[in-house]
Amino acid sequence: MGFGCILAGSAGLKPVDYGVISTPSQHSMPERLQTLHEDLSQLLRQLRPHQVGLEKLFFYKMGNTIAIAQARGVILLTLAQHHLLPVEFTPAQVKQSLTGYGRADKQAVQAAVARELNLPSLPRPDDAADALAIAITVWHHRFS
Amino acid sequence: MGFGCILAGSAGLKPVDYGVISTPSQHSMPERLQTLHEDLSQLLRQLRPHQVGLEKLFFYKMGNTIAIAQARGVILLTLAQHHLLPVEFTPAQVKQSLTGYGRADKQAVQAAVARELNLPSLPRPDDAADALAIAITVWHHRFS
Repeated sequence: MGFGCILAGSAGLKPVDYGVISTPSQHSMPERLQTLHEDLSQLLRQLRPHQVGLEKLFFYKMGNTIAIAQARGVILLTLAQHHLLPVEFTPAQVKQSLTGYGRADKQAVQAAVARELNLPSLPRPDDAADALAIAITVWHHRFS
Repeated sequence: MGFGCILAGSAGLKPVDYGVISTPSQHSMPERLQTLHEDLSQLLRQLRPHQVGLEKLFFYKMGNTIAIAQARGVILLTLAQHHLLPVEFTPAQVKQSLTGYGRADKQAVQAAVARELNLPSLPRPDDAADALAIAITVWHHRFS
C-alpha cells in the first residue's frame, strides 16, 4: 500500500514522507493484515495528518478485489481508531485534479506530482507517487 | 455478523453463546468497522475460543462483496490480534458436515444444529444458526 504525506505552507506544498507499507506475500492473510494495521498505526502516530484521502475501490481487478477490500477494511478501521474519516477519490478525479484531464496517463500525473511538490525527479515507487497524487487532490478539494 | 460458540464435553456438544454483532446501518462504514472490531474483541476475551471457523467468501453477492470483504478484513485482523487463525469452510462443506448432503436446505441444516446441540427449538436469528453450524463443522473436522 502506497502512502504519501504533504504539508501546505506559504511556499506551497512539500512532501513530508512517502513510501509503501508492504507485507511479505508468503505470510498468511491475517498476519499481513496485522502488519498493515501496526505499520499504518505507527505512521499515523508519527505523521498526525489532519485529513486523509483514499482511492475509491471498484471491481476493476476482479481477482484481487476481495484481498484489496479486506486490506481496505483494516485501513478504514485504523483511520477510525485515530479519529480520521477519509475522503475518497476515483482515479479519474485524481488525474483531473493533477493535470486537468481525467484520462491523463501515469507519466503525466507523476510529472504533475513532482512539479507541485518541487521534487527534482519523479517520486518512486509508483504506489507512493499515486498516494502523493491523492494527497494533492485532497488539498485541491479542501474548500470544495 | 452471526457468531456461535460451542463446548465439547463428555455429554456431547453444547452451545456456550450465540447471536449477532450488529452495527447501525446509518453509521459510516469506518464507524461500523470500529464497532465490529470492539464487539468482536470483547467476545473473544469473554469466550476464549480454542479454534475459530469462518465462512469462505465468494463473489456470490456482487453488490455487497466489497462491504463484506472489508468487514472480513477487520474480522481476520481481530482474530490475529488474539492469536487465532480461522479455518474456512464453504457453505456446501458446512451443509455436508451437518446433514451429509452438500445441498441441504436451510431448514435441514438448522434442524441438525438443534439436534447436535440438544436445543429445544431452532436457534435464531438465521445468522447465529449459520455460525453455530460452522462451529459444529469445525468440531467435525478437528482431526481431519
